Amino acid sequence: MLEAAEVGHTIGKARFAREAPKLREALLLAQFELKQAARGPVLVIVSGVEGAGRHETANQLTAWMDPRHIHVIGFGAPLPEEAVRPPAWRYWNAMPARGAIGVFMSAWYYEPLALRASGALDAHAYDDYLQQVRQHESMLAAEGVMLVKFWIHLSKAAMKTRLREIEHDPDERWRLTGAEKHELKEYPRRRGDWEHMLRTTSIAAAPWYVIDGADRRYRELTVATLLLAAMREACARKVMRPAAQGVPPAPAVLGNVEIVRRLDLTQRLPKKRYETELTRFQARLARLTRHKRFAERALVLAFEGVDAAGKGGAIRRVTGALDARQYATVPISAPNDEELAHPYLWRFWRMVPRRGGITLFDRTWYGRVLVERVEDLCSPQDWMRAYDEINQFEEELTTASVVVCKFWLQISREEQLRRFRARGKTPFKRFKITPDDWRNRRRWRDYEQAAADMIERTSTDLVPWTLVEAEDKYFARIKVLRTICERLEAALES
Amino acid sequence: MLEAAEVGHTIGKARFAREAPKLREALLLAQFELKQAARGPVLVIVSGVEGAGRHETANQLTAWMDPRHIHVIGFGAPLPEEAVRPPAWRYWNAMPARGAIGVFMSAWYYEPLALRASGALDAHAYDDYLQQVRQHESMLAAEGVMLVKFWIHLSKAAMKTRLREIEHDPDERWRLTGAEKHELKEYPRRRGDWEHMLRTTSIAAAPWYVIDGADRRYRELTVATLLLAAMREACARKVMRPAAQGVPPAPAVLGNVEIVRRLDLTQRLPKKRYETELTRFQARLARLTRHKRFAERALVLAFEGVDAAGKGGAIRRVTGALDARQYATVPISAPNDEELAHPYLWRFWRMVPRRGGITLFDRTWYGRVLVERVEDLCSPQDWMRAYDEINQFEEELTTASVVVCKFWLQISREEQLRRFRARGKTPFKRFKITPDDWRNRRRWRDYEQAAADMIERTSTDLVPWTLVEAEDKYFARIKVLRTICERLEAALES
Repeated sequence: MLEAAEVGHTIGKARFAREAPKLREALLLAQFELKQAARGPVLVIVSGVEGAGRHETANQLTAWMDPRHIHVIGFGAPLPEEAVRPPAWRYWNAMPARGAIGVFMSAWYYEPLALRASGALDAHAYDDYLQQVRQHESMLAAEGVMLVKFWIHLSKAAMKTRLREIEHDPDERWRLTGAEKHELKEYPRRRGDWEHMLRTTSIAAAPWYVIDGADRRYRELTVATLLLAAMREACARKVMRPAAQGVPPAPAVLGNVEIVRRLDLTQRLPKKRYETELTRFQARLARLTRHKRFAERALVLAFEGVDAAGKGGAIRRVTGALDARQYATVPISAPNDEELAHPYLWRFWRMVPRRGGITLFDRTWYGRVLVERVEDLCSPQDWMRAYDEINQFEEELTTASVVVCKFWLQISREEQLRRFRARGKTPFKRFKITPDDWRNRRRWRDYEQAAADMIERTSTDLVPWTLVEAEDKYFARIKVLRTICERLEAALES
Repeated sequence: MLEAAEVGHTIGKARFAREAPKLREALLLAQFELKQAARGPVLVIVSGVEGAGRHETANQLTAWMDPRHIHVIGFGAPLPEEAVRPPAWRYWNAMPARGAIGVFMSAWYYEPLALRASGALDAHAYDDYLQQVRQHESMLAAEGVMLVKFWIHLSKAAMKTRLREIEHDPDERWRLTGAEKHELKEYPRRRGDWEHMLRTTSIAAAPWYVIDGADRRYRELTVATLLLAAMREACARKVMRPAAQGVPPAPAVLGNVEIVRRLDLTQRLPKKRYETELTRFQARLARLTRHKRFAERALVLAFEGVDAAGKGGAIRRVTGALDARQYATVPISAPNDEELAHPYLWRFWRMVPRRGGITLFDRTWYGRVLVERVEDLCSPQDWMRAYDEINQFEEELTTASVVVCKFWLQISREEQLRRFRARGKTPFKRFKITPDDWRNRRRWRDYEQAAADMIERTSTDLVPWTLVEAEDKYFARIKVLRTICERLEAALES
């Protein structure tokens, strides 16, 4: 893919003077439309060869457009706050909202390119990394993010010339870091890695554009023309989230609900024993989360379950053992406007704990395949692809040393009714019961099916679901605490 | 994903007697509709655990439906005719046409499962294989194939019970192959591989359904219900080929056409020297294709180029050196009805040579990104994803020891006009010029852009494009012959 950009392209002053102003006007207009219609977002990724004009390209874009709605973010070696979180966190955190344009320098290509250059990734691991990037970008595209990827290129000879120019220009010389000679020497070896990367990650929904960077005017006009086309396409889309390809209507397998139905809900724990065990497990959890090896890990606790199954109570028994500075509890309800303007995983990624930290989610990203599925808040295509996307999300967390425990709390329909009624009677619990709860209850079977499908498709070796028989609150809480302790112990030992 | 199928499901006789007839009727009706509307095709993949009822499932489906339009194909160790071709060939060859239902036993999961079981694939290589399968199935789904994948499962205990039953049943005992004990012993080790496979290849467009195989009635009703849902979905689709996700309108990079325009078309070869070189290279090619190591390889020659660039002439100079039993020339024009009823790569896969064989394509699978793109015969989404799909196709050929050479023959617009006119005058060449040719000529720039994009996105290290300056026929033919000889020599030496 690099050959075409090594032929040498130039655009004369006259043509540039004629075309550039028209393009700038069109870009501004498209940007305004994108903002007004809240389409996109448009995510521009700029990468390429040293000295080819990557930073100049970013500067051009902000200069040519309304800088209030376009943000350039330079990703390089991770900052301290970034280094203590999973690698993907910083990209998620910077994700532009609908209507906006983000320019990511290198973006998630930073890691594979840097690790490959340093020799830390062999060809195999490099390819694996790129396959993950491919899946990640597919997901973003399916979520409505318009990806525009520019590789600003120079042939080796052109790079040599360019570096010499910079060296002799007193206004530019400051830009040299001293690493350029090494870059030039390594060029032939790295060219194959670039080619491989460009090809592997050029998917229909997110192709790379390789731009010859040798001539400034050519580079500027080409980048602007392609970006304009992408912005117009983003504005022209009727739907925010284009549907994915044909999918069977439901993944339900007759009878897989048995995995939920057959839980032994008669299991009980007497109050006395509960109190002893609670103290014991809370002490154990306190020790574990203060263990010096926990400083290198993090913990994500995900709570799902039928309404009134006791998620909140279980969560409080866990946090009772934790240092308040160390954890955050995140209650999840319907997404707000800002959250709706981002891919659905965004709000969860933002809350991923730093190393040594703990996040407890009261309801989670599984809302996509539970309430959003059952209440038709997203298309079957959307929730069908979510199983896979969620597995990848949790794998990324695990790879980054985060321990993820997820709990499904199950009670019987009769017990739910009892609890609903009790809530209605207890003044300080009355706020906990809403008309929504009664409506959900009428869709018990749909929720049951959605839960069974979810457990089937997302219980993995790395991150298994723990099914919690919650008819008896004491029993449930201790099972949750014990599971967390055991998972943490296993993780800290490994 | 396997847990849910190990809970143990049963369906009583009464319920089965009530529901099965209704399902059979619905299946027949859906099959009729699928056929009438020429939707789908529906491709059912059946895999699973020894003794779980995979073959019974296939038998059930043919018994319950109209056997004329459902075909079961059992893929196991490759047959001799299959073993001499790339692994994917047999699957392509068996691909059902629109309106039909194919049942593939194991399908492309045969290789990774068998190789993993035998230890020939380590965890890494196994995962790579599954990633490829994932891409392959994405492509099929995008081409309108409705994939329904069943994993018929048994827990280890249930498998043990089942095998004992078979052993004690005089009517079934013949089915035992003797490998069952080994299978049972290996179960715990293989379970993880199954899980990994099911999860990695469960994508939204082609999810696995894990079916508990222990109870015949449960298995039959579940399989039939899911298949019915998929068939109805296939019939309900408005478009044959659902569009992929949002894609920028064109991958054209301003100026990448230079790679075509800057070819030095003044290059000539005097007739005398041409004749000497022709004899020399033909002899060399003849020796190479009769070399004993060529028996382990195969050769695919792909010819593309502007109209009247001399593809036919070049092809004849190549075949002049070949043994007629060894090669096939395949002229590609607009697809016929049968070809249109299959994914676009199907007609090319069918013609892939066996080991020791040679196929020359006069126009190729690149029609997708050339004529189909320029003449709006497919959507931008379709041809954008084709670059990637074609790269995978050629990589599969290369992995299977097939040498692939692809040639782009370029002439100038003026030379084309001269040749068109000359053809009009020569009686035996007049058939070679049609109104289409004149029409294409008017879209010269669009074709040029499409060719440049194609070269940029599909010239890979493994299978590079050879650009042939064809203004002088002699020069072009020798360049083609020399390239083939050099590529073959390199391949036979490695």
